[in-house]
Amino acid sequence: MIEQRLKDLIKTIKPIDRAIEDKIQNKLDNLTKPRGSLGRLEELAKHYALVFNTLNPPVPKKVVLVFAGDHGVSDEGVSAFPKEVTHQMVLNFLAGGAGINVLARHVGADVRVIDIGVDHDFRSLPGLIHKKIARGTKNMAKEPAMSREEAIKAILAGADVALEAIQRDGCTMLATGEMGIANTTPASAVTAVFCSKPASYVTGKGTGIGDAAFKKKVEVIERAIAINEPDVSDPLDVLSKLGGFEIAGICGMVLAAAASKCLVVIDGFISSAGALTAYCLCPEVKDYIVAAHRSVECGHKVQLDFMGLRPLLDLDLRLGEGTGAVLAMSLVEAGYKVLTEMATFEDANVAEGEKAG
Amino acid sequence: MIEQRLKDLIKTIKPIDRAIEDKIQNKLDNLTKPRGSLGRLEELAKHYALVFNTLNPPVPKKVVLVFAGDHGVSDEGVSAFPKEVTHQMVLNFLAGGAGINVLARHVGADVRVIDIGVDHDFRSLPGLIHKKIARGTKNMAKEPAMSREEAIKAILAGADVALEAIQRDGCTMLATGEMGIANTTPASAVTAVFCSKPASYVTGKGTGIGDAAFKKKVEVIERAIAINEPDVSDPLDVLSKLGGFEIAGICGMVLAAAASKCLVVIDGFISSAGALTAYCLCPEVKDYIVAAHRSVECGHKVQLDFMGLRPLLDLDLRLGEGTGAVLAMSLVEAGYKVLTEMATFEDANVAEGEKAG
Repeated sequence: MIEQRLKDLIKTIKPIDRAIEDKIQNKLDNLTKPRGSLGRLEELAKHYALVFNTLNPPVPKKVVLVFAGDHGVSDEGVSAFPKEVTHQMVLNFLAGGAGINVLARHVGADVRVIDIGVDHDFRSLPGLIHKKIARGTKNMAKEPAMSREEAIKAILAGADVALEAIQRDGCTMLATGEMGIANTTPASAVTAVFCSKPASYVTGKGTGIGDAAFKKKVEVIERAIAINEPDVSDPLDVLSKLGGFEIAGICGMVLAAAASKCLVVIDGFISSAGALTAYCLCPEVKDYIVAAHRSVECGHKVQLDFMGLRPLLDLDLRLGEGTGAVLAMSLVEAGYKVLTEMATFEDANVAEGEKAG
Repeated sequence: MIEQRLKDLIKTIKPIDRAIEDKIQNKLDNLTKPRGSLGRLEELAKHYALVFNTLNPPVPKKVVLVFAGDHGVSDEGVSAFPKEVTHQMVLNFLAGGAGINVLARHVGADVRVIDIGVDHDFRSLPGLIHKKIARGTKNMAKEPAMSREEAIKAILAGADVALEAIQRDGCTMLATGEMGIANTTPASAVTAVFCSKPASYVTGKGTGIGDAAFKKKVEVIERAIAINEPDVSDPLDVLSKLGGFEIAGICGMVLAAAASKCLVVIDGFISSAGALTAYCLCPEVKDYIVAAHRSVECGHKVQLDFMGLRPLLDLDLRLGEGTGAVLAMSLVEAGYKVLTEMATFEDANVAEGEKAG
C-alpha cells in the first residue's frame, strides 16, 4: 500500500528537458563578460533555468529542511556526544541559535525542523513539524535499524514536507539538513553497501571521536552489515536495515524535489547518504541535485563520485544541519542573478570579444 | 617626496596582534557545534576578530573598489577584446549592469569605481572616482609601462581611496576589483619576475584568446622583461616597468588596509598581482589578506603559493572585477555571524561532547 505510493512518486520523476539549453547558453554568452568567465556560477544559472525549463526562472525562494532522528546504534559508543543532544539541538534550532539558523538567516533561507524520529516527546511544541515514525531507530549492530514499512513511511514523510514547501509555499530551492547523534555511523554503513566499499574506507571521525572509538565504529559498521545481510539490489532493504529516519526523510525529500521539478541542494555526508538512497531508487534524481560542498568525512567523496556530482565548496565543514547547503544555495542564487540582472553587450554598448576562445 | 609618503605608509604596517587568539578560539569552541566543525568559516571568524583585536568585532560593512586602467601593451594584440571595452565597462559598472554589480548587490556590498588610468576622458562623470594618473600605460614590450613616479602616484591613489572607505565611511572589509583590457599580460609579467618563474609558466589565456595569440602573449611578456631589466629587489622598479595603474592601485589599497588594520579580500589574478607587489614591499600585509578564490589563470596559484595564501573558493572564475572577492566577503561575514550569533552550549542547554577529538 504505502510501497505503492512510493513507487508512484518515483514513477513521476523524469530527466530534465534540455531543449532550451542552447538558448540559456546564448543568453549567458550575451552578457557583458568574457564567455564562461563566471565559471560555475554560469553552470548553476543554467541548471536552475533548466530545472524550471525557462529562460526566466522564478526568483529563488529558499528553505532548508532539517530532519532530526535518533539512532539505536549510539548505544555502541560511536559518537563523541550523548544521545540527548539530538533533542537539545532540536530546541536550539527552534530558538534560532544553531549554526544552521545563523547561516540560513545570512543567505535569506527559511529553516524548517522536522522530528522524524527523535527519542524524545516534544508534545505539541510550536514551530516543530511532527512526523515522528518512532523514538529512534533500533541498534543496527544487533538487528535492522527500521522495518521496511518504517523506512518507507519516513521517506514519504520527507517527501510530504518537501511537497508542502514546493507546492503550498512556492519554494524554488530546497536544502537538505539533518541532526542525529551517531548518524555518521548509519551513513557510512549505507554508503559502504551502495558503493561497494569496505566500511573502513567510508568511515570518518564524525563530530570528533578518538582513535579507539574510531576503530570500534568501523567494527560496529562491519558487524551491522554482516548481521543484517542487506540486499544491495533493493535500496529499501539497505536503507531500512542500516539507515536512519532522517536519512530516509532526506531520501524522500530528494525524490519529491525531482518529481516536482525543483532544485535540491544537498549538504554533507548524512544528507548525501539520503540522496544516494534516492539515486539508487531512481538515478534520474541526479538532474535536480546540486552538491553543496565536500565534507571532511572521507566517505562523502565516495558518495559524490558514485553519483557523478562535483561539489561547489570545500570549506572543511563537518557540522551537517544543512550548513554547507545553505551557503551553496546562495551561490545558486548568485548564478540566477547573473542570468537575470546582468546587462547584455548590446544594452550596455560594450564591444564583444572574438567569438573564438 | 611622494616616495617618502609611501615609505611612511609602509612603516605604519604592523603584524596582527595575536594575544587574544586563544580567547577567540575559546568563544568559538563554546558554540553549539562540534569543535572546529565549521572549518574555514571558523578560521575566517577568527581572522576577522584578530584584525580588529576584539572578541566582538564590528558588524561587517563591505565595499569593493574597482580600479580601471588601460594598457599600452594591448597594441600587441594580447587580448580577445578591443581596448575601448575598458571605458565601456566603466560606464557599465556605473550603470549597475556588470557582473560585479550583480554579485556585490547579492552580498550587500557597495561598489566604487575608480578611473586610475583609463584611456578615455570621462569629464566629471558622476559616481566615478577620478584618480587618473595617465591615459593608459605605455607599451611595456617597448619601454617601461610607467615612470617610477607614476607608479608611486597610482599606489598612493589606491591607498587614498581605501583610506577614505575605511576612515571616513567605516568600511570594515574591502574587496579588490579591477578592469583593464589586456591586464593579464602585465599581471603575468610582474608575477614572473617576483616569483622567479618563466613567463610561460604564469601566463594563461585571459579572457579567452586562441593558441596563436597565447604564444604571442608569452613572447610579448618575455620581451618586456628582457627590454626593461626589472630589479626584483626593488618592487617599485618591477611594478613601474611591467605593471599597470590598476595593479598599482590595488597594491596601494592592500597597503592602506594593512596600515589601517582592516581586512582586505583579494580577487583573482590581476588583484593578486597588486597584492603580490604590496607583499614584496611589506610582507606583513599578509596578515590582513583573505584570498577569495583560485582563478582559472594558471599564474594565480603561483602568486598565492608565493604569499602562502590558501584560496577560499574554486569556482572556475576568470572575470575579475572583484567578482570572486565579493562572494568571499559573504563567507567572511558568515564567519562573523557564527562567532557573534550562535548560541553557546550553556545558553542552549546542550550537553558538550568529549573534549578530546
